[in-house]
Amino acid sequence: MKLDAQWITGFVDGEGCFFVGINPHKEMTAGFQVLPEFTVVQHKRDVQVLHALKGYFDCGVVRVNHDDRMAYRVRSKEYLLARIVPFFIKHPLKTKKNVDFKKFRRILLMMEADIHLSIDGIEAIRAIAAQMNTGYLR
Amino acid sequence: MKLDAQWITGFVDGEGCFFVGINPHKEMTAGFQVLPEFTVVQHKRDVQVLHALKGYFDCGVVRVNHDDRMAYRVRSKEYLLARIVPFFIKHPLKTKKNVDFKKFRRILLMMEADIHLSIDGIEAIRAIAAQMNTGYLR
Repeated sequence: MKLDAQWITGFVDGEGCFFVGINPHKEMTAGFQVLPEFTVVQHKRDVQVLHALKGYFDCGVVRVNHDDRMAYRVRSKEYLLARIVPFFIKHPLKTKKNVDFKKFRRILLMMEADIHLSIDGIEAIRAIAAQMNTGYLR
Repeated sequence: MKLDAQWITGFVDGEGCFFVGINPHKEMTAGFQVLPEFTVVQHKRDVQVLHALKGYFDCGVVRVNHDDRMAYRVRSKEYLLARIVPFFIKHPLKTKKNVDFKKFRRILLMMEADIHLSIDGIEAIRAIAAQMNTGYLR
């Protein structure tokens, strides 16, 4: 299945999620690990679309999400910065998900600048992450 | 907001719904009314995307769906046949929603052929409609 960039943008406007988890982790300097993640979840009947996304971006994995749902997921900071972020800069999302994307990108850049390695930095990232995905989680 | 055809296809692959309701209606010859409907539901924060779809297809309405959800909806058989169906013939959906779309189109054509005006016809349409939207309603 060959995907068009605009199709991907429309599909991710509907089904995609930019998420940043912040988990306690005693081996990290600041006591927390920052885990940015780009995910597209879909019923297993359309798993071939998730594989097509994986093929297009040439990174990430397709895994069971829960029950009959499958997920395409990119967690590698390097691939997020090298492949996912540039794509959505070039082909901007049209929904308010673009606001989440911009926060997601900002957190990735802060991580590249090692801001997440200090306690103040973790708090700054936590404040941004707390404003993400708020509009449609109900 | 200007929409690209491939973006619309991707967005509808994620968020669109092709539905055929069959309701008792004593004024109809066969005792039932067939109500095909194309819908895209979205959180109200992205209502501008629904208005952009309405503008693109130049038909349908944007209304409250429930709570914080808004819907773009086309119920006119004429507009469905003249604008919605030809669009998704030209720009095929990539998910299994395309199977629903094809059944939706078939029912519209049966209605154009007045098949829904007989009891046998209603049963034939009901059998097709019962196979729609089954894969992801769980």
